[in-house]
Amino acid sequence: MLVVGSIGYDTIYGPIESGTSLLGGSATYCSIAASNLTNVAILAVVGSDFKPEHFTTFKEHGINIDGIEQTFNEETFAWSVRYNHDDINSRETLDTQLNALATFNPQIKDVHKQEKILFLANMDPALQIQVIRDMGTRPQWIGLDTMNFWIDSTLETLTEAIRMVDIVFMDEGELRSYAQSNNVMVAAHEILKLGPSFVVAKRGEHGVILINEEWAFAVPAFPLTTVVDPTGAGDSFAGGFMGFLDSHNDISTAVFKRAIITGSIMGSFAVGALSTEGISHVTYANFNKRFNDFSILTQFDPLEPNETFPWK
Amino acid sequence: MLVVGSIGYDTIYGPIESGTSLLGGSATYCSIAASNLTNVAILAVVGSDFKPEHFTTFKEHGINIDGIEQTFNEETFAWSVRYNHDDINSRETLDTQLNALATFNPQIKDVHKQEKILFLANMDPALQIQVIRDMGTRPQWIGLDTMNFWIDSTLETLTEAIRMVDIVFMDEGELRSYAQSNNVMVAAHEILKLGPSFVVAKRGEHGVILINEEWAFAVPAFPLTTVVDPTGAGDSFAGGFMGFLDSHNDISTAVFKRAIITGSIMGSFAVGALSTEGISHVTYANFNKRFNDFSILTQFDPLEPNETFPWK
Repeated sequence: MLVVGSIGYDTIYGPIESGTSLLGGSATYCSIAASNLTNVAILAVVGSDFKPEHFTTFKEHGINIDGIEQTFNEETFAWSVRYNHDDINSRETLDTQLNALATFNPQIKDVHKQEKILFLANMDPALQIQVIRDMGTRPQWIGLDTMNFWIDSTLETLTEAIRMVDIVFMDEGELRSYAQSNNVMVAAHEILKLGPSFVVAKRGEHGVILINEEWAFAVPAFPLTTVVDPTGAGDSFAGGFMGFLDSHNDISTAVFKRAIITGSIMGSFAVGALSTEGISHVTYANFNKRFNDFSILTQFDPLEPNETFPWK
Repeated sequence: MLVVGSIGYDTIYGPIESGTSLLGGSATYCSIAASNLTNVAILAVVGSDFKPEHFTTFKEHGINIDGIEQTFNEETFAWSVRYNHDDINSRETLDTQLNALATFNPQIKDVHKQEKILFLANMDPALQIQVIRDMGTRPQWIGLDTMNFWIDSTLETLTEAIRMVDIVFMDEGELRSYAQSNNVMVAAHEILKLGPSFVVAKRGEHGVILINEEWAFAVPAFPLTTVVDPTGAGDSFAGGFMGFLDSHNDISTAVFKRAIITGSIMGSFAVGALSTEGISHVTYANFNKRFNDFSILTQFDPLEPNETFPWK
């Protein structure tokens, strides 16, 4: 699986913990989450200040970093955020320094061209299109994430990118804004009409809903009594989801549903600690336990074939 | 099952349809929803303008209306609301005329005292306490709904009422406000410490989560492409939930989970048409179909005993 996106240094003022120069970025969270499940290669750019220990972090997760370009005339993308103590879902971006990311020009290498799955994290849709074209052979599944900035500024190019992919990740507000509909289901179906097979509508602490032409599958976020740092939850979700698909050859409805659970689990681990600390230490035992906890949280007895409900 | 709450005439400016002098009120939605599942009696007050056809509406649903008091020196409780076209979850109360409700003094009749289940819809907590005391024999399950107005104005009395009940219904904002915690799980557990066995945290279009000391169960709202009128969704949910409990003698975890699904189905029917039109025409076939649709929406393959996930 190939992940294209950002690697950055985050300054985070969280509700519980804070820190500066923390390893972050969409490709970071996504690739670490996916690395639990499948082989991951990453395509991104870092600057002159990028620390060797952080290359090691990727390598320790078995992530192929041949696609990380280091440029020495710029620093690494830097982002600073403050979370609202009264509403963890709301945050204020304090500063964004694109630095090396400003001139990022992803170069697909031959080793990337065999990847079955491509995840395009939030970035300029023109670059997302370029990456798909440069892949040569089309990957089996292409996922695309985006944000309001691109919906507002480059709607036509974004639409062109969406037409080329299979799975679109947006939060509910972005979906409503993109499709000009207040109803998330209606908005998702507008996107399906453009070509993608699936829309993942992200609902923050309320979970996600996966929508296709035939069915939808909704999962609540795992209820946590402590959310340390919401940064990277969506990218960790995408990494778990796409990584789970990559680890299966036959992609059925049942696999898609489990992939959504897997993504939700990765998101829940990501928010449990500051920066990448949460997503970096997911063990199989912890994953397995949370998969079963998700069953308790969401599964009920279906109506048996010969069963009827009490009804007046 | 006994439902104590309001009956009113609503003026609704909905996103799609509008209407005036529409039958509404918490006890109305709740009792109609529950009447599909169990025997329901209602305790409420109406005024001089209350139309005979609306008594008929209750009777046609088999609801015992001996507890509806009609006072002729006041009009019926009247409420006017406008929903935000851009965000169905936000609404503006345009006018509230308490009228007969201002001096409502619920009189428990002997016929009510055998009820196994009591639902206290949103009202002055002092009245909720009075109703519980007047019941004599404590019902097996007492549910209580409330709203921010009482949290802000009569917190101590509300807490006294909460200590007397089994199931507390609040939306997430009310829970956070009541328990002074931004985390809904933490807030719910604060309420469980007071005595109730269950908290139902209502999340509007994102569904509900049922929380007790040992486990939680979360269900998304049924995704609808058209929401005609959100009025009464929460009360219809409560009616379906409590009504389902009333129709079962052995209340297990599995029954509680199905009760949550049943409530969610009733809520989804309620919002599909203006006023009580949606909740008034639920057939067993439609209910059954939606129960199965909820399975497709939420159920996935659990991990089999000897199964392992692909893991790196």
